[in-house]
Amino acid sequence: MINNNGTLLYGAIEGGGTKFICAIGSGPHNIRAEARFATTTPGETIGQVIEFFQQQEERLGKLAAIGFACFGPLDPNPASPTYGYVLPTPKPGWSNADVVGMLHKEFDVPIVFDTDVNGAALGEWRWGKAQGLQTFIYLTVGTGIGGGAYVEGRLLHGLIHPEMGHLLLRHDREKDPFDGVCPFHGDCFEGLASGPALEKRWKLRAENFMPDHPAWELEADYIAQALVDYVMTLSPQRIIIGGGVGSLEHLLPRVQKRTRELINGYVQSPAILEQIESYIVNPGLGNRSGMLGALALAEYALQKRP
Amino acid sequence: MINNNGTLLYGAIEGGGTKFICAIGSGPHNIRAEARFATTTPGETIGQVIEFFQQQEERLGKLAAIGFACFGPLDPNPASPTYGYVLPTPKPGWSNADVVGMLHKEFDVPIVFDTDVNGAALGEWRWGKAQGLQTFIYLTVGTGIGGGAYVEGRLLHGLIHPEMGHLLLRHDREKDPFDGVCPFHGDCFEGLASGPALEKRWKLRAENFMPDHPAWELEADYIAQALVDYVMTLSPQRIIIGGGVGSLEHLLPRVQKRTRELINGYVQSPAILEQIESYIVNPGLGNRSGMLGALALAEYALQKRP
Repeated sequence: MINNNGTLLYGAIEGGGTKFICAIGSGPHNIRAEARFATTTPGETIGQVIEFFQQQEERLGKLAAIGFACFGPLDPNPASPTYGYVLPTPKPGWSNADVVGMLHKEFDVPIVFDTDVNGAALGEWRWGKAQGLQTFIYLTVGTGIGGGAYVEGRLLHGLIHPEMGHLLLRHDREKDPFDGVCPFHGDCFEGLASGPALEKRWKLRAENFMPDHPAWELEADYIAQALVDYVMTLSPQRIIIGGGVGSLEHLLPRVQKRTRELINGYVQSPAILEQIESYIVNPGLGNRSGMLGALALAEYALQKRP
Repeated sequence: MINNNGTLLYGAIEGGGTKFICAIGSGPHNIRAEARFATTTPGETIGQVIEFFQQQEERLGKLAAIGFACFGPLDPNPASPTYGYVLPTPKPGWSNADVVGMLHKEFDVPIVFDTDVNGAALGEWRWGKAQGLQTFIYLTVGTGIGGGAYVEGRLLHGLIHPEMGHLLLRHDREKDPFDGVCPFHGDCFEGLASGPALEKRWKLRAENFMPDHPAWELEADYIAQALVDYVMTLSPQRIIIGGGVGSLEHLLPRVQKRTRELINGYVQSPAILEQIESYIVNPGLGNRSGMLGALALAEYALQKRP
């Protein structure tokens, strides 16, 4: 399990709705192998992951642990009978798939299974913009909206795991008559502000909006409303916003400004009153957040956590 | 510090905006002395607390630790230069009062200082309706609205502490033209749903509303909206609602029903889908939540927490 540099080697799986990215390494500067596979069926996709890890183990040596950051909903609670399962999902074939069980049959090492956003949060804590923090949020705004949280030194799971994309926001239908795209809630946060919502409302792909398009003022307001609710509920020391939409450079200053306006001086912390630019930030690991997050989960597996 | 029954004795301070309640004991069934004082100035009120504890120590023996659950905003972070202070508050005389410092001058024992709602949460975890849980919320709806959270086995502080009363809710002004009473946000959760908001909107004291008054449907909707946002952000295993308004018996079933409607099946947990009556509950400790919470904080002071 220790390679010729004396470092432990971990397996990382970033399981997304359209592709799986796998890597072997010990950190951002030591990725020894990487591969990606289309997300088809659990049997085929997890099969490809297993085959890749087995081939690479022959070359690089045994893995010490595996981190698996996966699209949700999923069951991350080791005490639950459905631990390691993807929970009922519209994605054909994946409902109740025991994806961790499939991996455990082939690899006798600790496996940490968590949401993609909790993985990304842990990656940012380990190597990105959340280093040294005790309590923060990683939010992704893209095809979907989701958030992971690290709270008082631990990844938050609670009842199952947060579903930060489904906050109920203020929706002024005179300014924005769009009904929203969430099949459960219509005009919740994800329903109003995800990539598909932007595209359906404005009949334009998100990457083709100019920065001065009126879409962005509305988008910044919805994101800022959600951030206010997170600040009031979870009191994060920082909020990191990633994802295809959330990472857009021109969006961040609008979100910072609008969040501060909405809090209106109520939370008496210099972090918000004076340093909002370092309070709401884009990810330090960019689009490697997911894969490195999975690697951080693997490392987390080997830590004794009381 | 050990009395003649062999148990440790703790000092408890429930610091409220209108009165302070102090007690000495070891738990709900062993309260040895209790006193209450009007909240006037920090010097006078904390002075009375000190005098009470000193007199009782002569009779009962030394205190092992003190728990102080206080109205906020306050600084509960032991690493901060203003630890133990009440932060800027409209309450005359209390802004930046070093209340823990005043106690430490007289008592050389561990003191845990936290919000009233974190105290109440810990009391419910120790002796009430949150026993055995890892992650839950205690919400009070009364003169003000505030929430405390216990997350993955720890009291949540984060940046400062949550301010759960200041969520931004959906406010349909056709149904409810009332502007709200929050001096910072107007129609945030506290602005729309606290006791003063009810009284100002309907020109009637909260205890005089009949259970079939239209106020309650509106109130249940606002509380339920907030609970949905807490569920999505923090994934609690249970939500306990106390306070003068929040404890009203006829309100709870409406809040349970409306919360489940708004979540609309999205969070796939039997706790919400099938057992909402034991998911959203009133406190197990009733109106002793605050004082017993302070006692639980004192006990917490002596625990080694990694």
